[in-house]
Amino acid sequence: MTAQVGTKLRSDARDNRERILAVARLAFAADGIDVPIREIARRAGLGVATVYRHFQTKEELLADAFAEQLELCSSVVEQGLAADDPWDGFSLVIEKLMEMHALDRGFARAFTSHLPLVEDFALERNQSLRLIQELVRRTKDAGYLREDFVLEDLVLALMANEGIRAESPQLRVAASRRFAAFMLQSFQANPVATPLPPAVRLPLSR
Amino acid sequence: MTAQVGTKLRSDARDNRERILAVARLAFAADGIDVPIREIARRAGLGVATVYRHFQTKEELLADAFAEQLELCSSVVEQGLAADDPWDGFSLVIEKLMEMHALDRGFARAFTSHLPLVEDFALERNQSLRLIQELVRRTKDAGYLREDFVLEDLVLALMANEGIRAESPQLRVAASRRFAAFMLQSFQANPVATPLPPAVRLPLSR
Repeated sequence: MTAQVGTKLRSDARDNRERILAVARLAFAADGIDVPIREIARRAGLGVATVYRHFQTKEELLADAFAEQLELCSSVVEQGLAADDPWDGFSLVIEKLMEMHALDRGFARAFTSHLPLVEDFALERNQSLRLIQELVRRTKDAGYLREDFVLEDLVLALMANEGIRAESPQLRVAASRRFAAFMLQSFQANPVATPLPPAVRLPLSR
Repeated sequence: MTAQVGTKLRSDARDNRERILAVARLAFAADGIDVPIREIARRAGLGVATVYRHFQTKEELLADAFAEQLELCSSVVEQGLAADDPWDGFSLVIEKLMEMHALDRGFARAFTSHLPLVEDFALERNQSLRLIQELVRRTKDAGYLREDFVLEDLVLALMANEGIRAESPQLRVAASRRFAAFMLQSFQANPVATPLPPAVRLPLSR
């Protein structure tokens, strides 16, 4: 094999890998994490064997497809922890996570699932949850967050956020913003009714 | 055809119809309303043609399978309207609808969907929503419900309720109870933090 052919092959392989990841991200976002590998291969216009050459398991593909978003989540949590006011930090985390999840159903589902096989993903996600736990403690200590709030309530809110359906990801984000405002209000130790983001037309009222 | 054979045929047909409805209810509850007719026929141990003889369309099957639950919903709303205290009535409606929806994903999905083809179902559902609208007005007039609450917020809460996943319908109902308490608190005009039903372990923490 000449050097040139070798370079060409490596660059084709890289292109394929990127194409598979891009197609997988879109597929998981639109149709959830249950889209099978063979369907991703079909949408990428590649053979199933080619996909398996790059990602030995569906779990590996999932972890790589969501790596960037998971990193973004971690940085949102760090931003929340760095806020001067713990309630501001806590609200920021809830609002941003819900927004990211509303934009990508696949990521949302992966984030709130027990995925022991997607080790790297689960490790980083759990690290984010531990940091959120720390933020929860601080926000309670400052008297802003209700004492009976548990981390499970954040998971409950994120799962609930996944249930919201609208006609586009943008409308889903808008509906999700109003929902986040409701949830935040219900989490307060001394709740005050604050103005809400506007209501959004949902499928039922079409 | 003798009278006896005719009776036997009619009774077989009735048995088949009941069996299809029972299987359809279970299938929609467990796997959602997208389960196709041929899969329902398979689970009922009947031919697809037999199912179509009883239900000419998937929509007709949906409407008949959910007729009882929809009636139960209507009676819950009437119960809510009849309550002496509008907030008690409003809370009862939210709690009961969320509980019914948590027990049956298929019904929940149908209830919050735009289903123009399932005419009878949509008519009765919309009648329930109109009654809830009346209850909303009364609860606002009495000063209990926030002025910026719109019926869309109930739909938002019901959709969110659908997103909750747990290991059994019973655990889903328990998680849904805590969620309903959060939502009710966020809907109050003058919110007060009240005790919550216990938190439930969700898939993530397994």
